[in-house]
Amino acid sequence: MTESAQLTGVVPPLVTPLTPEYDVDTASLARLVQYQLAGGVSGVFVLGTSGEGTFLTDEQRQVVLETTVAEVAGQVPVLAGVIDTSTNRVSAHVSAALKAGVDALVVTAPFYAATHPAEIERHFVRLKSVAGDTPLYAYDIPPRAGTKLPASLITSLAEQGVIAGVKDSSGQETSLRELVLQRREKKLDLTIMTGSEVTVDSSLAFGVDGVVPGLGNVDPAGYVRLYNAAVAGDAAAARAEQDRLFRLFDIIKVADRSRMGASSAALGAFKGGLYLLGVIDCPVTAYPSIALNDGEIAAIRPLLDRAGLH
Amino acid sequence: MTESAQLTGVVPPLVTPLTPEYDVDTASLARLVQYQLAGGVSGVFVLGTSGEGTFLTDEQRQVVLETTVAEVAGQVPVLAGVIDTSTNRVSAHVSAALKAGVDALVVTAPFYAATHPAEIERHFVRLKSVAGDTPLYAYDIPPRAGTKLPASLITSLAEQGVIAGVKDSSGQETSLRELVLQRREKKLDLTIMTGSEVTVDSSLAFGVDGVVPGLGNVDPAGYVRLYNAAVAGDAAAARAEQDRLFRLFDIIKVADRSRMGASSAALGAFKGGLYLLGVIDCPVTAYPSIALNDGEIAAIRPLLDRAGLH
Amino acid sequence: MTESAQLTGVVPPLVTPLTPEYDVDTASLARLVQYQLAGGVSGVFVLGTSGEGTFLTDEQRQVVLETTVAEVAGQVPVLAGVIDTSTNRVSAHVSAALKAGVDALVVTAPFYAATHPAEIERHFVRLKSVAGDTPLYAYDIPPRAGTKLPASLITSLAEQGVIAGVKDSSGQETSLRELVLQRREKKLDLTIMTGSEVTVDSSLAFGVDGVVPGLGNVDPAGYVRLYNAAVAGDAAAARAEQDRLFRLFDIIKVADRSRMGASSAALGAFKGGLYLLGVIDCPVTAYPSIALNDGEIAAIRPLLDRAGLH
Amino acid sequence: MTESAQLTGVVPPLVTPLTPEYDVDTASLARLVQYQLAGGVSGVFVLGTSGEGTFLTDEQRQVVLETTVAEVAGQVPVLAGVIDTSTNRVSAHVSAALKAGVDALVVTAPFYAATHPAEIERHFVRLKSVAGDTPLYAYDIPPRAGTKLPASLITSLAEQGVIAGVKDSSGQETSLRELVLQRREKKLDLTIMTGSEVTVDSSLAFGVDGVVPGLGNVDPAGYVRLYNAAVAGDAAAARAEQDRLFRLFDIIKVADRSRMGASSAALGAFKGGLYLLGVIDCPVTAYPSIALNDGEIAAIRPLLDRAGLH
Repeated sequence: MTESAQLTGVVPPLVTPLTPEYDVDTASLARLVQYQLAGGVSGVFVLGTSGEGTFLTDEQRQVVLETTVAEVAGQVPVLAGVIDTSTNRVSAHVSAALKAGVDALVVTAPFYAATHPAEIERHFVRLKSVAGDTPLYAYDIPPRAGTKLPASLITSLAEQGVIAGVKDSSGQETSLRELVLQRREKKLDLTIMTGSEVTVDSSLAFGVDGVVPGLGNVDPAGYVRLYNAAVAGDAAAARAEQDRLFRLFDIIKVADRSRMGASSAALGAFKGGLYLLGVIDCPVTAYPSIALNDGEIAAIRPLLDRAGLH
Repeated sequence: MTESAQLTGVVPPLVTPLTPEYDVDTASLARLVQYQLAGGVSGVFVLGTSGEGTFLTDEQRQVVLETTVAEVAGQVPVLAGVIDTSTNRVSAHVSAALKAGVDALVVTAPFYAATHPAEIERHFVRLKSVAGDTPLYAYDIPPRAGTKLPASLITSLAEQGVIAGVKDSSGQETSLRELVLQRREKKLDLTIMTGSEVTVDSSLAFGVDGVVPGLGNVDPAGYVRLYNAAVAGDAAAARAEQDRLFRLFDIIKVADRSRMGASSAALGAFKGGLYLLGVIDCPVTAYPSIALNDGEIAAIRPLLDRAGLH
Repeated sequence: MTESAQLTGVVPPLVTPLTPEYDVDTASLARLVQYQLAGGVSGVFVLGTSGEGTFLTDEQRQVVLETTVAEVAGQVPVLAGVIDTSTNRVSAHVSAALKAGVDALVVTAPFYAATHPAEIERHFVRLKSVAGDTPLYAYDIPPRAGTKLPASLITSLAEQGVIAGVKDSSGQETSLRELVLQRREKKLDLTIMTGSEVTVDSSLAFGVDGVVPGLGNVDPAGYVRLYNAAVAGDAAAARAEQDRLFRLFDIIKVADRSRMGASSAALGAFKGGLYLLGVIDCPVTAYPSIALNDGEIAAIRPLLDRAGLH
Repeated sequence: MTESAQLTGVVPPLVTPLTPEYDVDTASLARLVQYQLAGGVSGVFVLGTSGEGTFLTDEQRQVVLETTVAEVAGQVPVLAGVIDTSTNRVSAHVSAALKAGVDALVVTAPFYAATHPAEIERHFVRLKSVAGDTPLYAYDIPPRAGTKLPASLITSLAEQGVIAGVKDSSGQETSLRELVLQRREKKLDLTIMTGSEVTVDSSLAFGVDGVVPGLGNVDPAGYVRLYNAAVAGDAAAARAEQDRLFRLFDIIKVADRSRMGASSAALGAFKGGLYLLGVIDCPVTAYPSIALNDGEIAAIRPLLDRAGLH
């Protein structure tokens, strides 16, 4: 992928399969990559929020990057999350990811400290100087990073050539549409991807380029059908596929939330689904996350069945 | 400090002096340590939120730890922040801090991912096994870590011997009092420190053991006087000192918040005050934070004067 | 409108035109009604949030109701907001609205006190007994009422025949889609209207029945064209109309937000637009709201021009 | 109470006793007033949040006002809540309260609509012109009114002679201290009362004038002892009394929060305690609030016993 290449379609944020001892399970990761490629995805995104990147050691992150790059073997772009608290730390992840041969980098605002858009801008500008020709994608995920990237910041970074695109996981349709309108009005070279699993048909209809769905781990082919229907102008088919996936997304509700966090419940469900489908060997999430128990894993099965996944 | 030693008094969370090139300024850090010791502090806490720990590289963190341990030379305990997103990453910081010879470790909940108290408990338990005999302090700072540590979690960790104390920067007086009451009722061995700059007399009056005030960077002697008055039962003197420090805290309002974040405004003011007092050579905050400009730095001066600091 | 009649299409929440002395300007209100009817709306909704119902005395509310019912003269349904803090108070508004001859009632959760869904359910059930055959619509507006109506509550109220529909102003596309899916799955008799001005094409595409757009005060015909395009399956035309209206909605940004609240800025802009279009005589908002000044009113003009409104 | 009279001490916000049919129980209300006077309170505050004022009809509110004024018979000031959404509506409540002969009025910011401090200021200024010589107290209760009254607004209103004081139920100790400091620095004629049940000793120590504790319904004498100890300079006695009351406040946790809201749980507990103490005849809260069940009421008994209330 060169800087001018436009990313489109379905780019799932891959989970990181782990062994019961919390090591990266490279064999399962390789199968997951093949499952995605067979599903027709346009790219894969590793070490994002779904990839539990912030839970892994630098060594584990490198294993994920290298395994993925090798397994993908150039068939689609590999995007790497470089999510960390500050510019210094993200820079180190950028260098490591470039060394592993990834095609693009996905960067959040700094977090933990409370930052201002002007400081976030400095963050991205500096990181672009480290990344060189490799495209940067801004990752807008307010519940995790603690701040909403303003449309004015994103368009400014695009005009400066600092970012090639944005992954919007804010869940705010209005701001996403604002961005699409500004891209058209200002003729920006900016890829706009939504991170929402359940509003993809709408978002494609008003002009986003693709989707980065966590649920795409479990059903990449479904998202590809949805995308293809939408770009073919078959709104009814896109909606039907979206409605099916909306209900499949109910798997994130099987876990008992009185004993685990929202991240564990969602990622545990994605991994649980992949485990039941035979793609990965173990559904455990990264320490200290609490894993779904056997009953919760079993409760995923009928939801897969209902969605036609076997 | 052994595990049974009780931490009390004033333990400022030291800022990390930087050069204009964003390197750790060890000479300024050494002077800051001496300024604190001369002020009569009971300990120093490095690499916390005020210490911009999340902005520094591992190498820079190690320089801060080693410089501080050497400069303190055993006169008071050195507490080290080991703030990072997940257990794995904090573990590495714990090992590095132990190697540098610190006396205690200060640990937040995991962040970025949304965690549950049961997961936070696993986080602390694992870290205690890494820390061995070195005491752990739970650091409760909801606006940064994204979660409030429930009193039930803190008391459970104390009962298990996992934590020696808590630094409460939640700003929630009710929960802090709840903790003090539970300590008495359950006869817990638990140090309770407040992280609030402006309610210290109250907190000491209802039973906390000490304070970890960011503003203590600028006026350690003032906080020590406040602490000594409070423990001597001179509420009026404690309140008068607190009122003076309350107004000194107005230095965090000199910065133009339309161009920088809350963290930059507060830390920039602490550093600006130390710079004006001749303790550190440069008031810059860590990249990508925007520094106070000359006019903002100058506006700190009359507030120092009003507080009797020259 | 009988209970079985299905509400669809565009039902603007009318502003309440006021004189400079803060009396209801019935002549302007009558012109506003005619402007809406000429625009092709399917109904009008008075005394909602846009209608500043919570600012008006009971006498003023009655004037609004009677003027509107008389002017509409049965051509379309008149929906009346009965927004107040508690069941008792809303009951009184229901009785007054029934006496004025309205066709349906729009009810929020109780507010000021913090209520539970089970308490909100009791609220609606009691009000239905007061309203008799006149349909109730649940009004889901979390930023104002302080609580999000759960999908489970809305479907339960629909199954009991308590509500005929819902106006969703939550801005949460995911919960709105959940409701549409549940309606289909449970074969509910439930009208679903969106209150968002800027996502109407999307919402109609995934199955909502119509829209209650504040901006429809200014451009009812535009929303009717959007609605008609969407139901005719012309997604491109619907999107183009939505994009035009999205930019017209920028009128809510002309006011200086350092001197007035969000409600004043939005309602002042709607009234300012109607004033410039010659529909109402005075753009003032209800006391104590601060009105847009002449410069702000003038700044609306080019935005009307850009949208083709003269 | 004349305008220059300074309110101090304990002024409980009285609950409104209701019959099982949700009528005002005037006999119970009269006993509650006598129970308060016997406890030594400095004033009573009716129709506040604890008084469920927003749940009552205008007729019921008038019954509460007249019953209370008659029963108090001038022994202490009667403060009346005039809580409603907007200036117009509050004005009507002010007039009604004046007619009933109350001594002071307690006013929140407008709510439901989102207002700006400049608009809140207009609200208070207009209401003062209606209230005449009767003092107004600003009621700062952000979780209910949706906005925090800035210190600058309160001091401005005091300087203009619009308000005589403030009841701060924000739970934000820092802003409360800011207000106390500004009063001293600007020599304001401003009564400052805290609405927090559990931090009264601290607040009195740093300079507030008194407390408006919901829990004071149940134990007025306890709060009076706490107040008297604090003004006598006996910090240890004040703290011991506060600690006892802190634990008594656990009664608000007996209700099952999965079936009722926070307001119902707290007010149901206050009424439950008064019922068990024989002060009122029925612990029901206003419709649509869900009442505590028999088991929950019974669970209050041991907490009263522990606190020495029989």
